[in-house]
Amino acid sequence: MADINTISKQFTDFYYQTFDTGRAGLQSLYRNESMLTWEGVPVQGVNDIVEKLTSLPFEKVVHKVMTLDAQPSSPTVASLIVSVTGLLVVDDSPNPLQYSQVFQLIPDGGSYYVLNDIFRLNYGA
Amino acid sequence: MADINTISKQFTDFYYQTFDTGRAGLQSLYRNESMLTWEGVPVQGVNDIVEKLTSLPFEKVVHKVMTLDAQPSSPTVASLIVSVTGLLVVDDSPNPLQYSQVFQLIPDGGSYYVLNDIFRLNYGA
Repeated sequence: MADINTISKQFTDFYYQTFDTGRAGLQSLYRNESMLTWEGVPVQGVNDIVEKLTSLPFEKVVHKVMTLDAQPSSPTVASLIVSVTGLLVVDDSPNPLQYSQVFQLIPDGGSYYVLNDIFRLNYGA
Repeated sequence: MADINTISKQFTDFYYQTFDTGRAGLQSLYRNESMLTWEGVPVQGVNDIVEKLTSLPFEKVVHKVMTLDAQPSSPTVASLIVSVTGLLVVDDSPNPLQYSQVFQLIPDGGSYYVLNDIFRLNYGA
């Protein structure tokens, strides 16, 4: 099996490319038990999560990952926690927004699904 | 049992108060299987984690939590993922540093220990 740094890089590349080009395509990554907390608002289940993501009020968005860290999250299952910090360019704004996002990925056949997803914008002091 | 928001608030209050007043006291929160990734540097096990934390090159530090989110991280165990964004004031600097930190807490008797800990400073664009 690929190491967790390779898996987390492949996952985040796919996740953010899909987010930035067609958010509805993220549906394949979530299950009914999946949880998303977006800017403090909790949503559960693939349908509600995709509805939340596709209704976010920006037309055009580009994620730029600045740091990416991963750790195994269980002694018995090949799950992992992925922590991302990065920049979000929304609707061609000249001022990128800093964000933090955490995922827990659960193995599922030859792939992974997202059980946990927590997103926050980081505002300055 | 208390809800996860209460648990995560109690945990982060204790964690950051202990960090800011005597980092060696964080030893009780980690186990041999615990992992810390500090600014991209991975460390495992309670002894190496405490050595890393106590050797960080600042004399005086104050954490200010700005956002705190928690989700259950397992369908079978009362573990949780806690995601924090906040500000770090180091050695009375007038410029607080933004940080992101993620914990996975595992129930252990009537309390919790930290299995996963990922810390990153957030620099601007």
